[in-house]
Amino acid sequence: MSELRVKIGEIAKRRGFYWKSYEIYGGLGGFYDYGPLGSVLKDNIIQLWKEHFVLKDGLLLIDSPNIGPELMYKASGHAEKFTDYMVKCKKCGHAFRADELLKSCMENPEKLDEKGLWKAIKENNVRCPDCGGELGYPERFHLMFTTQVGLNKKAFLRPETAQGIFINFPILYRLNREKLPMGVAQIGKGFRNEISPRQGLLRLREFNMAEIEFFIDPQADFPLGEEENVILPLLTREGKELKIKAGEAVELGILSSPIAYFMARSLKFLRALGIDENKLRFRQHFKEELAHYSRDTWDCEVLLSQGWVEVIGIADRGDYDLKRHMHYSGRDLTALRRFKEPKRIKIKKLRAKMDVLGPLFKGEAKKIAEIIDNMDYREGDIEIELNGKRVKVPENAYEIVFEEESIGGERFIPHVIEPSFGIDRLIYAVLEHSYYERAERGYKVLKLKPRIAPIKAGVFPLMSKEPLAKVARNIVTLLRNRGVNCYYDDSGSIGRRYARADEIGVPFCITVDHTTLEDSTVTIRERDSMEQTRVKIEELGDKLINLIEGNLKFEEV
Amino acid sequence: MSELRVKIGEIAKRRGFYWKSYEIYGGLGGFYDYGPLGSVLKDNIIQLWKEHFVLKDGLLLIDSPNIGPELMYKASGHAEKFTDYMVKCKKCGHAFRADELLKSCMENPEKLDEKGLWKAIKENNVRCPDCGGELGYPERFHLMFTTQVGLNKKAFLRPETAQGIFINFPILYRLNREKLPMGVAQIGKGFRNEISPRQGLLRLREFNMAEIEFFIDPQADFPLGEEENVILPLLTREGKELKIKAGEAVELGILSSPIAYFMARSLKFLRALGIDENKLRFRQHFKEELAHYSRDTWDCEVLLSQGWVEVIGIADRGDYDLKRHMHYSGRDLTALRRFKEPKRIKIKKLRAKMDVLGPLFKGEAKKIAEIIDNMDYREGDIEIELNGKRVKVPENAYEIVFEEESIGGERFIPHVIEPSFGIDRLIYAVLEHSYYERAERGYKVLKLKPRIAPIKAGVFPLMSKEPLAKVARNIVTLLRNRGVNCYYDDSGSIGRRYARADEIGVPFCITVDHTTLEDSTVTIRERDSMEQTRVKIEELGDKLINLIEGNLKFEEV
Repeated sequence: MSELRVKIGEIAKRRGFYWKSYEIYGGLGGFYDYGPLGSVLKDNIIQLWKEHFVLKDGLLLIDSPNIGPELMYKASGHAEKFTDYMVKCKKCGHAFRADELLKSCMENPEKLDEKGLWKAIKENNVRCPDCGGELGYPERFHLMFTTQVGLNKKAFLRPETAQGIFINFPILYRLNREKLPMGVAQIGKGFRNEISPRQGLLRLREFNMAEIEFFIDPQADFPLGEEENVILPLLTREGKELKIKAGEAVELGILSSPIAYFMARSLKFLRALGIDENKLRFRQHFKEELAHYSRDTWDCEVLLSQGWVEVIGIADRGDYDLKRHMHYSGRDLTALRRFKEPKRIKIKKLRAKMDVLGPLFKGEAKKIAEIIDNMDYREGDIEIELNGKRVKVPENAYEIVFEEESIGGERFIPHVIEPSFGIDRLIYAVLEHSYYERAERGYKVLKLKPRIAPIKAGVFPLMSKEPLAKVARNIVTLLRNRGVNCYYDDSGSIGRRYARADEIGVPFCITVDHTTLEDSTVTIRERDSMEQTRVKIEELGDKLINLIEGNLKFEEV
Repeated sequence: MSELRVKIGEIAKRRGFYWKSYEIYGGLGGFYDYGPLGSVLKDNIIQLWKEHFVLKDGLLLIDSPNIGPELMYKASGHAEKFTDYMVKCKKCGHAFRADELLKSCMENPEKLDEKGLWKAIKENNVRCPDCGGELGYPERFHLMFTTQVGLNKKAFLRPETAQGIFINFPILYRLNREKLPMGVAQIGKGFRNEISPRQGLLRLREFNMAEIEFFIDPQADFPLGEEENVILPLLTREGKELKIKAGEAVELGILSSPIAYFMARSLKFLRALGIDENKLRFRQHFKEELAHYSRDTWDCEVLLSQGWVEVIGIADRGDYDLKRHMHYSGRDLTALRRFKEPKRIKIKKLRAKMDVLGPLFKGEAKKIAEIIDNMDYREGDIEIELNGKRVKVPENAYEIVFEEESIGGERFIPHVIEPSFGIDRLIYAVLEHSYYERAERGYKVLKLKPRIAPIKAGVFPLMSKEPLAKVARNIVTLLRNRGVNCYYDDSGSIGRRYARADEIGVPFCITVDHTTLEDSTVTIRERDSMEQTRVKIEELGDKLINLIEGNLKFEEV
């Protein structure tokens, strides 16, 4: 483990960002708790995500359950295909993800199939990382958690939030007044029974995600608007690295417009989180690496102490999902493409043959003929309902004719672009990219952006005596009533209190001193510049809120 | 089903608050989706909860996983005791919760045990509600969802968020600088495999909850502060109804201070949500009804079309949870009670007998004696570690003496008060209590408080023509950039647009008309009074935000 990773983990546990779950019961691999600081940091990141994507792009937000029925996951393909290759140690019985074991001895082991993995394990003489034992042949391991609803209905915990959106397409499309493009967002938990999760927040069995399913008409234009000029750092499937404007990448055919659009939007979001732009790239998936539903996928990767780590995936899922759900549910999940002018088209229609129907159905033949004449085109024997009974009409009782009709549009299956954000990975990336050490003073700082910092201000009486302490406590109440998350601290020297605040990324520290008693001013100290300035208490709330929201610079206070 | 319930359900589905999950796959009982309006309403209610409880009371927020290990749920008692009585129909095989079936024919069936339920079913001739068939004998049905982690570790989905807090007590207590009282909050999903969930949002198998575990020293005072004078509507276990000040209820011994405190805080929260205070009461649990961990519980119930429904439970869990987890984990989950002055106390100590140890252990006897002299009091044979070996010392090798010691405090197991909020039920209650019909105009209104209304403003051009439409669209962008959730609507008459907005609780509608083009003003119309006033576009954002936050009344605009 790299030194930085150890340092972040130490601060995380000691100060209450996150820690391994269930430690008092020996732990459970792949599960982490967010502590008081971490859960607020997570909330703040999610809040920013909602403002950046949902509010500003006018997306629809939905919230569907974690537990889903088996049939839905048969339709999505997960029941069959959502597996990883596992190898078990023949000696200690521990299980590992095959491609993870090969990462240190070769490039892109995720491209390998069962036989390829086995060959690579043998050739590189890969042994059990826990006991050095011999490894067995790769087996498929299913990654969904299974459970049972009611007395006996098999169900899964969702591996992604996406399916809950797809199956609601008809309702959502109606709520969106039958307009495309339509973006639907969902933020929530995902669950994957990872074979051997050992990378802290980077590989969890229960994780937080934020996903957008963006439904488009593949024939419609998709203008990039002001995102056109955002410069994207790309790494193509062929290994080409380039920095290129979003608009240009589309023109050159490197990216589709919607993928380029969401790359640009994502880049801006990561910037707002404080991710270092020089440690960020969009990497195109290899063909072999693509998920079963994907036509093209670009991962947004961030350079961390572990190497390049995916934090966002932007996948073109084509019409895979809606098509599959249409097939499995028998429901109509299409959208309407309106023509600019109505089109006259020839369509196949059924025309009843009275000479066949008459002898067969006698007095009811006329009614049946009427029903058949109004039916959509189909082939073979037909079942119709007549006076509450089901009646079978043989295929020789009708013929197929062409008719001209004027139509205003046509139905089609929308395509889906899916930007998917790993919130836990983003949290970890933000912590690593925010961390620095103030050498001259020998202490640690998290330069968290004020918007996402879990605590916005520390309030310190110079000494823990009255009336200083009381004034400081009143300021805490005043700020909390304004919605500013702050805390009171009177323990140790002011320097030590600053240090404790810096380590958890508190952007502003407010000190109540003797001058406060004279002129009702306090000092505000900014974390990174360590500059201080005096402010009137009555103006403190407004100024602090403006500093946090980014409407005011510290120099302007 | 009552008429009101049907109306709310109809609006919920048609306008996108919530609907039954997985409908295209035939549904899955007890699961609901929140649509675009419902998920934002939920977020807003949770946000208000966080401000009201977490921020203002300075609680610690944590976020622990949904999946938890079997051992933890053995410790909590859920693995054994978290069951309901189920009866199955002998004819159609459908299963029902026994006490629910009896609700219509008797009072308080939840007080009955297995035999009592069976007797009541027979005596009242209760039959299967689905087919009228004969019902079988009550069986215990386990309410936790089971799953498996990794290759073979049994685990459960949490039935409440509480356990994730209890087991982290040592870390949280340290983070709180070893001070009590300490309140820890968690907001998240809970899962209960209900036998026959049939009441919409009121009985879900996967639900949203917000819980506080408030750790107290049972010997310490708990001042009510300004909550003392809040008037609480109580219904005691004995059936007594009274309206009484929180402070008085404590003095009379009806309520403990912490329960009274959280009742008062909860009442204020429900008020902020817009719950009708005349349809609200705190009902004390019957002895037979108390959960296995509870010493006393009061449910906050709200009167809905289904009758009185629990939306908040406030339970005194005593030291049950921490004690059980100490026992099962072998860890120390106690807190320190500091004495005002150090106490001199007599404690039992071990004193080694060299005359027994000498012959037994020879050259090592002296070292062993030293270890024994420093041990905490215990009885029987002792195992000690000496030079890496375990050595057994018989009980006759030491005597028990009394020594005086000066101590600064003592360890104790904190008690826990748990206010637990059912978010889904609150959402439904808010919708029912917000609903009214404007008879003279024949349409429906949700008088949602601006703070929790999912959409704060509709922006309407008087006609869908330029330049009116463009000005309206610019206002939408302007407001969204200020964080105000609003939408553009140019379809139908202004009256129809108001009606659509009222039905989903939009508190303010902004209309761009011809005067706008002359003097850059727009009209704001308030939902309930239907009053209108003109405002300059440049002041619109500020005024609207102040209206939403409740800092400004509409008459003052």
